[in-house]
Amino acid sequence: MNYILNSIPFRTQKPRNTGYTMAMDKGLSLREVEDFLESNGDYVDIVKLGWATSYVTSKLKEKIDIYRSAGIPVYFGGTLFEAFIVRNQFDDYRRLLDKYKLSFVEVSDGSITLDHDEKCEYIRTLAKDVTVLSEVGSKDAAKIIPPYKWIDQMQKELSAGAWKVIGEAREGGTVGLFRDSGEVRQGLVEEILTQVPEEKILWEAPQKEQQVWFIKLLGTNVNLGNIAPNEIIPLETLRLGLRGDTFDFFLDK
Amino acid sequence: MNYILNSIPFRTQKPRNTGYTMAMDKGLSLREVEDFLESNGDYVDIVKLGWATSYVTSKLKEKIDIYRSAGIPVYFGGTLFEAFIVRNQFDDYRRLLDKYKLSFVEVSDGSITLDHDEKCEYIRTLAKDVTVLSEVGSKDAAKIIPPYKWIDQMQKELSAGAWKVIGEAREGGTVGLFRDSGEVRQGLVEEILTQVPEEKILWEAPQKEQQVWFIKLLGTNVNLGNIAPNEIIPLETLRLGLRGDTFDFFLDK
Amino acid sequence: MNYILNSIPFRTQKPRNTGYTMAMDKGLSLREVEDFLESNGDYVDIVKLGWATSYVTSKLKEKIDIYRSAGIPVYFGGTLFEAFIVRNQFDDYRRLLDKYKLSFVEVSDGSITLDHDEKCEYIRTLAKDVTVLSEVGSKDAAKIIPPYKWIDQMQKELSAGAWKVIGEAREGGTVGLFRDSGEVRQGLVEEILTQVPEEKILWEAPQKEQQVWFIKLLGTNVNLGNIAPNEIIPLETLRLGLRGDTFDFFLDK
Repeated sequence: MNYILNSIPFRTQKPRNTGYTMAMDKGLSLREVEDFLESNGDYVDIVKLGWATSYVTSKLKEKIDIYRSAGIPVYFGGTLFEAFIVRNQFDDYRRLLDKYKLSFVEVSDGSITLDHDEKCEYIRTLAKDVTVLSEVGSKDAAKIIPPYKWIDQMQKELSAGAWKVIGEAREGGTVGLFRDSGEVRQGLVEEILTQVPEEKILWEAPQKEQQVWFIKLLGTNVNLGNIAPNEIIPLETLRLGLRGDTFDFFLDK
Repeated sequence: MNYILNSIPFRTQKPRNTGYTMAMDKGLSLREVEDFLESNGDYVDIVKLGWATSYVTSKLKEKIDIYRSAGIPVYFGGTLFEAFIVRNQFDDYRRLLDKYKLSFVEVSDGSITLDHDEKCEYIRTLAKDVTVLSEVGSKDAAKIIPPYKWIDQMQKELSAGAWKVIGEAREGGTVGLFRDSGEVRQGLVEEILTQVPEEKILWEAPQKEQQVWFIKLLGTNVNLGNIAPNEIIPLETLRLGLRGDTFDFFLDK
Repeated sequence: MNYILNSIPFRTQKPRNTGYTMAMDKGLSLREVEDFLESNGDYVDIVKLGWATSYVTSKLKEKIDIYRSAGIPVYFGGTLFEAFIVRNQFDDYRRLLDKYKLSFVEVSDGSITLDHDEKCEYIRTLAKDVTVLSEVGSKDAAKIIPPYKWIDQMQKELSAGAWKVIGEAREGGTVGLFRDSGEVRQGLVEEILTQVPEEKILWEAPQKEQQVWFIKLLGTNVNLGNIAPNEIIPLETLRLGLRGDTFDFFLDK
């Protein structure tokens, strides 16, 4: 920190177990990655190469290497996993993870229909070699999954070996955990939290209001994801009660 | 491509006749242009310096040179053409094109009232020396042009020598082809396509939902424009069926 | 300017007294600052490090130095002032200004409740050493301040030594001067202008429609703030009547 302010809430430091921030890179150039890390490296715990952007990213290996040198793991968005699965290319996908020496992977079924046992089987298989993030929730706004199913799937996926489960929101923050308008499905989140440990969940929350809502519910060190590169520092100030939206929240505590 | 996925739709390669992507640069610095080209050079066919931003752009010549070295033509937004016309400075405009050695030009009447014969005359004159993109549609949301007029104007402008005609949307995507809300004027587009060859049209479609709509209507290799620099890679994944929105669309085909 | 267009409205040059543009930096890296200045240096008069982002900004001193070398003053967002005040750390705040050799400061009460006499006392104290921008308006959308109070506060803050007063809008442009929808509270602005000299006010106006509205009301050289880095050149074209929205406005004048 650049100066001393009293009564700042406790913020975990890297390597973090909670208070995780996942950033979404949807096509940064190598120099943009360097710039991003210079400003935000301390506040980013993991980077997702959004959906299947890695397919068309130039200098992919070099990009992953830059993140790796900064101590920040990279993983491919779940849509890429699904693109391989829907084409019966699971073995190719595993080879791809090897080729780029990725130690994290996302397993999701946001765009495909996947029997849940089969999904858990993929988690179990992959978890032998890498750390698995598994995602619950559909990318289809019309597919509303009731809370008990979210809970059941999250629990089973954790049992199958997922390190954390991700609550789906997409890049825009308008599906899954959220309504079309971006508003949080509050009942859903609260019901999930009665059954799944908070530290095992990474909430996708790309919009500021969504981040504020989660910080007010779960505190400074809530795990948040799908944060745009230029919103990492703004998020960090929200976590610390140093932006209007959360300014009062941590005072007198 | 960085790895092999089966059943990816055929995508044209540069130099493209169809499947054109036009990016809008509204003030990138030289280094930002270099970064942009490193990541997106293969997916961008032409760059528009948005409206009259070139008037206040520093190092304009150097910027155009960087694009030229990458084999990507640059043109000034149509609003600049109109700014010269409304001031009776057409000859100055031609000298300007010469000065910067531009081989593409846009002729439009989105902000001025221009007799259509006169517009075609400008196209005819300019087409002797450079490649002309002509734009149909008003920037004024209140000026609704009926489909038969769009078609008539497009046909006449192509006859006058326009290489392609552009469907107007502005940077935001809320006029011309689209309603205030950004929704596509579907009937308009479909009626245009009964009379004007698809490959002769470049659709301005800055919003993701608009891009998805055109890709579903006209396929991977539809010509799209007014794409923001950081949305080029996302668009490319939409074209290839590698993002949630078009994920199913090219499978089983 | 890169070429000659007739009938362009008179635009003040740096160092400006009116026609001021304040940009908001919410986390640029050093190289991004360099890029920003290369393209926009002539059009930016002052830079605000948004709210308390300076707390978590890496290489803060180097960043301020780059701006300083370009002749552009930097100041901390008002929320930082408030964060020190609410913690009874005013003396620390003054030492902070010294440490970074800042010659501008913002005094505001958008997130805290501050007796207005006390606010003016802070302005008076700080104005002995640095140039004070004082901000009127709450960040709380529910707190509607009636026009007569805006005027009274602005007048008193100017009397206390504020160089200019800022009309609050936040980064998004949805509070203070504006409704939730971003629409300008026109009656408020017009009433303020009957009592406070236009050149003493800096209007926060992050959205394009807001900028257009102020330019049409007060002309090319209105003072505008909270402009995102990549919207500086677009704003400059609006000021000059070189974008669709203001294209007609300065012709025939």
